[in-house]
Amino acid sequence: MNTTDPFLSAAIEEAEQGREEGGIPIGSVLVHQQKIIGRGHNQRVQQKSAVLHAEMHALEEAGRLPASVYEQCTLYTTLSPCAMCSGAIILYGIPHVVVGENKTFMGQEQWLRDHGVKVDVIQDERCVAIMNSFIATHPELWNEDIGE
Amino acid sequence: MNTTDPFLSAAIEEAEQGREEGGIPIGSVLVHQQKIIGRGHNQRVQQKSAVLHAEMHALEEAGRLPASVYEQCTLYTTLSPCAMCSGAIILYGIPHVVVGENKTFMGQEQWLRDHGVKVDVIQDERCVAIMNSFIATHPELWNEDIGE
Repeated sequence: MNTTDPFLSAAIEEAEQGREEGGIPIGSVLVHQQKIIGRGHNQRVQQKSAVLHAEMHALEEAGRLPASVYEQCTLYTTLSPCAMCSGAIILYGIPHVVVGENKTFMGQEQWLRDHGVKVDVIQDERCVAIMNSFIATHPELWNEDIGE
Repeated sequence: MNTTDPFLSAAIEEAEQGREEGGIPIGSVLVHQQKIIGRGHNQRVQQKSAVLHAEMHALEEAGRLPASVYEQCTLYTTLSPCAMCSGAIILYGIPHVVVGENKTFMGQEQWLRDHGVKVDVIQDERCVAIMNSFIATHPELWNEDIGE
């Protein structure tokens, strides 16, 4: 299925923008009280960044926030969050994560749940397709991004 | 005791530089084959960053690297690494972490060890002193940095 959720759709738009820039097509938005307060996409190629995965980029773009805001946020990401991004979610106490898909990469979802984070996995077909296409055409870049 | 390890000393210099800049005094260096390839200190104040903890800043400054380099690295940090920084260590398969102290903040050391990471804790007195002084004088800034 393809999501009709406007926030996951916004994360997919971020992923598509990353693809158009020649980057790794993963996108994320941080939502507070039904409003996007941070959005981003993987910056490995564009900014030569080792730490700005999509989720981290969305958190960075949201800027410095108190715990009282994070605890009312939902993080949307097109792909299951890796250990680093899951660690950021736990650090800041973000209680809810919506994951576009985990078929092409399984992140630390169980660790998130063990810390009380609600993790919803949509298995959106566009999210799966954009990653399958990327991994098939750029396997070395993908391996670099996940430390393999 | 005070460390005589030149790499932990370099991380402490980074922490001291952060303090002089009015920032959060935590420093880190990434060492590959006995050479510092990345160094950094917490950038919450200086760059208004939510993601550039000291360890993340050192990884970012090291730039894009293949897994074959990370797996020969040791990360030195003045303070026990939080969930986000520990996640980055696990993502990139860094096998060894040297921690200045964990008396003022206990990070995800057990999670790191569960993933096969060697974690050495020095309990260096300078590392403890710089954090105790910072936390006493800037409790709100410190709480923001650890999501509390």
